[in-house]
Amino acid sequence: MAKLEVHHLNNSRSQRVLWLLEELDLPYEIRPYQRDTKTMLAPPELRKVHPLGKSPVISDGDITVAESGAIIEYLVDKAGASLRPRAGTAEQRRYTYWMHFAEGSAMPPLVMKLVFDRLRSAPMPFFAKPIARGIADRVIASFIAPNIERHLQFMEHELGGRPWFTGDAFTAADVQMSFPLETSAARGGLDARFPKLTDWLARIHARPAYRRALDKGGPYAYAS
Amino acid sequence: MAKLEVHHLNNSRSQRVLWLLEELDLPYEIRPYQRDTKTMLAPPELRKVHPLGKSPVISDGDITVAESGAIIEYLVDKAGASLRPRAGTAEQRRYTYWMHFAEGSAMPPLVMKLVFDRLRSAPMPFFAKPIARGIADRVIASFIAPNIERHLQFMEHELGGRPWFTGDAFTAADVQMSFPLETSAARGGLDARFPKLTDWLARIHARPAYRRALDKGGPYAYAS
Repeated sequence: MAKLEVHHLNNSRSQRVLWLLEELDLPYEIRPYQRDTKTMLAPPELRKVHPLGKSPVISDGDITVAESGAIIEYLVDKAGASLRPRAGTAEQRRYTYWMHFAEGSAMPPLVMKLVFDRLRSAPMPFFAKPIARGIADRVIASFIAPNIERHLQFMEHELGGRPWFTGDAFTAADVQMSFPLETSAARGGLDARFPKLTDWLARIHARPAYRRALDKGGPYAYAS
Repeated sequence: MAKLEVHHLNNSRSQRVLWLLEELDLPYEIRPYQRDTKTMLAPPELRKVHPLGKSPVISDGDITVAESGAIIEYLVDKAGASLRPRAGTAEQRRYTYWMHFAEGSAMPPLVMKLVFDRLRSAPMPFFAKPIARGIADRVIASFIAPNIERHLQFMEHELGGRPWFTGDAFTAADVQMSFPLETSAARGGLDARFPKLTDWLARIHARPAYRRALDKGGPYAYAS
């Protein structure tokens, strides 16, 4: 059987794909790509693997799968029945919810915050700088930060009722949720005010599979 | 059997939930909510239904489901087996891909474009206006518009090989994809340069279930 290939961009959503592969004990090879150090964009070689040129993408023989949620579902279909709750249960409804919430709701304001944070320090004429900062501060304060905060409060409340996002058992939805929560801890205001989320992060980071993935994928700085 | 309730915000993602319910011939009732005409935000009453206070949300007896992708999967589980491809097929992999791509990849730059478009016309001192416009134009031109364009080209190419997003048959993934494509047509540059996407939009708009949903949900202006 050919090994799975993971097209892995440093500091990206592909870290959680490595983690899931380790949880499932599936053999894989890493094809590494480096972000352009100036633009932070993925390199053009990634377009040869998938037309959108983004990471993560995996190849499994002739099959190419992109989009984090779809990759996770593909791997769970392949070898991870134990990481997806039984159909028709409340756990499964929560699983599907968090699988979509992670990238459909949680990530967009975090990416938008990154764009406005960069605007604050972008090169521009001296007379424009204070105006650019003022705009960025106002959009973040009035629109982006409240949105992120509401998400954090909601997730904290949900983890008050159960140890993992879907229930008593760790599932692939926890893997999918790791990226928005790690990004929130890095630059979205996730701190000691949210003890359940902080504890959840400590628990995922202590998992042997998570640590093996980090060893193989290389250091990880929670960029976009 | 209690009717499903759809908490429906005007000009929002909930339009496609009504459409799917019509495709599945499931009885439902609409609980209407109106956006604040000034801020365009959802009204606070929606928080009583779901803590994030966003639309769409559905209630099915004691079960509440939020997040477009999760609602669609819930309804397909309930009554729509014919609208989801058989497990283990290429069609099913595409189905899962588009279900996640719609909100995880396609919508974020479209929402970001809306934010920067509004920045162009936001009230501010006269000396700041040209700078705000300059910033908005530059972020849109260098980052947001190329991203949207790349998505459109990719989707156009995909629909070159098959009539619906997953294959020869219409599926719930087409319902999920309707919102980003309608938004792209309204303000993301989807025009006659993309004949396959334009034709796909005409075909979904001609479906009797789509038209019934529009009659019941009220006019729809493709906002965020």
